[in-house]
Amino acid sequence: MLYLIGLGLSYKSDITVRGLEAVRRCSRVYLEHYTSILMAASLEELQEFYGKEVILADRELVESGSDEILRDADSEDVAFLVVGDPFGATTHTDLVLRAKKAGIQVETIHNASVMNAVGACGLQLYNFGQTISMVFFTDSWKPDSWYNKVWENRKIGLHTLVLLDIKVKEQSIENMARGRLIYEPPRYMSISQCCEQLLEIEEKRQDQAYTPDTPVVAISRLGSPTQTLKAGTIRELANYDSGEPLHSLVILGRQCHELELEYLLQFTDDKDKFRTSVLQDQEFFKPAPWVPPHELAEED
Amino acid sequence: MLYLIGLGLSYKSDITVRGLEAVRRCSRVYLEHYTSILMAASLEELQEFYGKEVILADRELVESGSDEILRDADSEDVAFLVVGDPFGATTHTDLVLRAKKAGIQVETIHNASVMNAVGACGLQLYNFGQTISMVFFTDSWKPDSWYNKVWENRKIGLHTLVLLDIKVKEQSIENMARGRLIYEPPRYMSISQCCEQLLEIEEKRQDQAYTPDTPVVAISRLGSPTQTLKAGTIRELANYDSGEPLHSLVILGRQCHELELEYLLQFTDDKDKFRTSVLQDQEFFKPAPWVPPHELAEED
Repeated sequence: MLYLIGLGLSYKSDITVRGLEAVRRCSRVYLEHYTSILMAASLEELQEFYGKEVILADRELVESGSDEILRDADSEDVAFLVVGDPFGATTHTDLVLRAKKAGIQVETIHNASVMNAVGACGLQLYNFGQTISMVFFTDSWKPDSWYNKVWENRKIGLHTLVLLDIKVKEQSIENMARGRLIYEPPRYMSISQCCEQLLEIEEKRQDQAYTPDTPVVAISRLGSPTQTLKAGTIRELANYDSGEPLHSLVILGRQCHELELEYLLQFTDDKDKFRTSVLQDQEFFKPAPWVPPHELAEED
Repeated sequence: MLYLIGLGLSYKSDITVRGLEAVRRCSRVYLEHYTSILMAASLEELQEFYGKEVILADRELVESGSDEILRDADSEDVAFLVVGDPFGATTHTDLVLRAKKAGIQVETIHNASVMNAVGACGLQLYNFGQTISMVFFTDSWKPDSWYNKVWENRKIGLHTLVLLDIKVKEQSIENMARGRLIYEPPRYMSISQCCEQLLEIEEKRQDQAYTPDTPVVAISRLGSPTQTLKAGTIRELANYDSGEPLHSLVILGRQCHELELEYLLQFTDDKDKFRTSVLQDQEFFKPAPWVPPHELAEED
């Protein structure tokens, strides 16, 4: 059996009771180690908690070395641990398909991930649109395909969850060119850098997917002992010191009701100012009333 | 301390280790009992597992009786358990706000909910739009405000998660009129009823938010021992026997990539037919290329 087990967000004890029971039954335990990290537990602590060796699985092992992960999993139990929930990233459905083709049974043990725990900011999950990823810009590479998605979400009033880049086990271009397996220290994008990049692209594109005064919520270390939320405008949070990783950001859409706004006010420096920025943003981005397409066609 | 604790999807052991430790510390334990149910555990099993009495909290208690839930929570530990994750429904942010106003500390212990575990169908969570709820239609009450949301999602290529109605502790109109506290047996919407209602509203609205041939995925008993997925068209799944509750449905958007489609094919009766329906639906709902609004304005 291959167990795909979500570890949740932060503590070693965020694993479910059922997940822990499964891990303890397994002969090999892998931890996916390139899309996220467990904030409040070290590898050593996990190994002690599980009573098992934990093998770190980098991108190369998961994408090219799945035969090794799946070895003997038709007759033994193997665990593949994922921070958050196993079904956040496509590569894990790939692993499931490979397992099934090899006649290996697969069981998933779900857990919280940022994709649902982001509800902790008080905005209804129902009203989130597509999720975007913000990568570290370089001087020559500033991908902005996410901009259209924010625009699409906000045009229909939806919030946008922004996942901030993390770089784990990356090589410098020089080390890569020389074939040296030396890795850079891990890097995690801060809220201020994300907001600066948002401002930079809006400045360049000028399509008003948002403005510097659009309200956002910074979610730092979600689910950890030091979880911190901060609500403000993009311009304000471009100067916010968000502290240790991990961070996510929510760009508000129009669908923020009074109770949700009241909840967000807990996380502001200036309640009146934030309330004003939400109301002005809603007004500024107010769409024309929804017209069914067949009525539009009749007008033609 | 007020603990908001997610129970996850199905088994009593889907609670996290940290959640279980907190429950066992609490002097009172409430279970929110009107927005969802735990599929593979009875109240008695939960009580035995926790070693605690569990008080069922219906809508009335949560919305009007929060003083009782929060009683002495400044000096004692009280647990409020929610199937899935505590931040799916607004009423729980309301409870948090009331607690904070009363000077009570609040800690949330997150867990999987349908909002992220739906990724188990293989479609990337990134590409889901707003979520809709489908309620039981009656002869005189057929709310369809969700229709515009499906249309908005699909117009920009996004999938739509449809949450199916559950009726727990409902009174008949006659019993309500006579003030008799007699409750109807619980009802849970089936996949076929949901698909029939989708077809009925498209027939009435005719705005082609979808067609009878639009591909959907039925997710039954997500995370339980009998989890079952079925992919087909809306028309096909209107005749599908989805078995015991709970059920959810995903209406596919255009953003279904080859690996995701391959994953869905596991759940079809006829792989070629489903592949064709996905490709035709993508073609049918293909939008005009995205045009930045400032270019549109220049054309005027």
